[in-house]
Amino acid sequence: MNAQTCLQILRDIKDVSFASVDEKGMPHNRIIDVMLVEDHKLYFCTARGKDFYNQITKNPHIAITGLNRDFQMVRLHGTVKQLKEQKVWINRIFAANPVMNDVYPGDSRYILEPFVVDNGQIEFFDLSKHPIQRQSFRLDQEVLQEHGFFITDSCIGCGTCQRNCPQQCIQAGTPFVIEQDHCLHCGLCYENCPVQAIVRRGE
Amino acid sequence: MNAQTCLQILRDIKDVSFASVDEKGMPHNRIIDVMLVEDHKLYFCTARGKDFYNQITKNPHIAITGLNRDFQMVRLHGTVKQLKEQKVWINRIFAANPVMNDVYPGDSRYILEPFVVDNGQIEFFDLSKHPIQRQSFRLDQEVLQEHGFFITDSCIGCGTCQRNCPQQCIQAGTPFVIEQDHCLHCGLCYENCPVQAIVRRGE
Repeated sequence: MNAQTCLQILRDIKDVSFASVDEKGMPHNRIIDVMLVEDHKLYFCTARGKDFYNQITKNPHIAITGLNRDFQMVRLHGTVKQLKEQKVWINRIFAANPVMNDVYPGDSRYILEPFVVDNGQIEFFDLSKHPIQRQSFRLDQEVLQEHGFFITDSCIGCGTCQRNCPQQCIQAGTPFVIEQDHCLHCGLCYENCPVQAIVRRGE
Repeated sequence: MNAQTCLQILRDIKDVSFASVDEKGMPHNRIIDVMLVEDHKLYFCTARGKDFYNQITKNPHIAITGLNRDFQMVRLHGTVKQLKEQKVWINRIFAANPVMNDVYPGDSRYILEPFVVDNGQIEFFDLSKHPIQRQSFRLDQEVLQEHGFFITDSCIGCGTCQRNCPQQCIQAGTPFVIEQDHCLHCGLCYENCPVQAIVRRGE
């Protein structure tokens, strides 16, 4: 699994959800087609009359998510860029997705504007596995943001966290260690540690 | 179609996407299970250790969306309320969704907190129809927010909008009229009206 494979999962699902934030700071969410995926870049389009267009041209931060039939979930949080060569990109998108002609026949396609996401962090989850598997990737050269729970050297080795973990993904040791690739981030270990040896990182 | 039917579509899809906004104003999006739908209310849960829990307990505005295999899309924008009788609701949720025991066995289920959405606006789209069909509903007693494009009395009856409409959903008249139930909100009519007789309402 890598960043490109995750983008390809979103392309294969095709109808994925795109969240944006409006000028009042409110979240919006709708299904948008992933039109092309190439070289660590994801392309989509939307019409200039839509609230979605209005939102992302004012605030480019978006959060994309999709789940496929194998229960693999991909989340991508990044920013969108509007592409300047509008007709070139819309024509490429329609060539790759001919069903678009049913919705926007003839020249009406040029009410659509093309966008690319070439940055941000991806979270991959395989919910079909037990314990679940998770991995994080970057679409760009930025440092991966660490999220979740970590056991510090204050650990007294009592094993409370290991007994509580619903995914059984904590290994005994000095200190005990959470297997990050399998953690749900549920927080049960964190809440029940008798010496507060577990810290939360990230948001 | 009505509000309850739309909630039932989300329950039938089950794995739908929930967008929230964090303290920095950034959008987040992930797949969450719709656990129960009853009497114009939608129930879900999440673990106290998750960023999602952190976000919605600080900012209850969320946007939910899902698309079923018949290409019916539902969007729900509202606010969440945390339910006080935590164990009662989590037990009800697990009874209705026994597969949850695989992820949170035994008492680990009580790291989850129950939430309800009983307010907000729903947008329904049937993308399998041509022209597409859309309808709006409220989950509460608030006034439906009108969105989209409307032709005013400034219309000169030239028919430019009707010729441009990709969904052919503009009827001739004095003034011409956009069939709101079939409109994509693409904005082509609005951009091309020679006398700016078309207005945009909503956001």
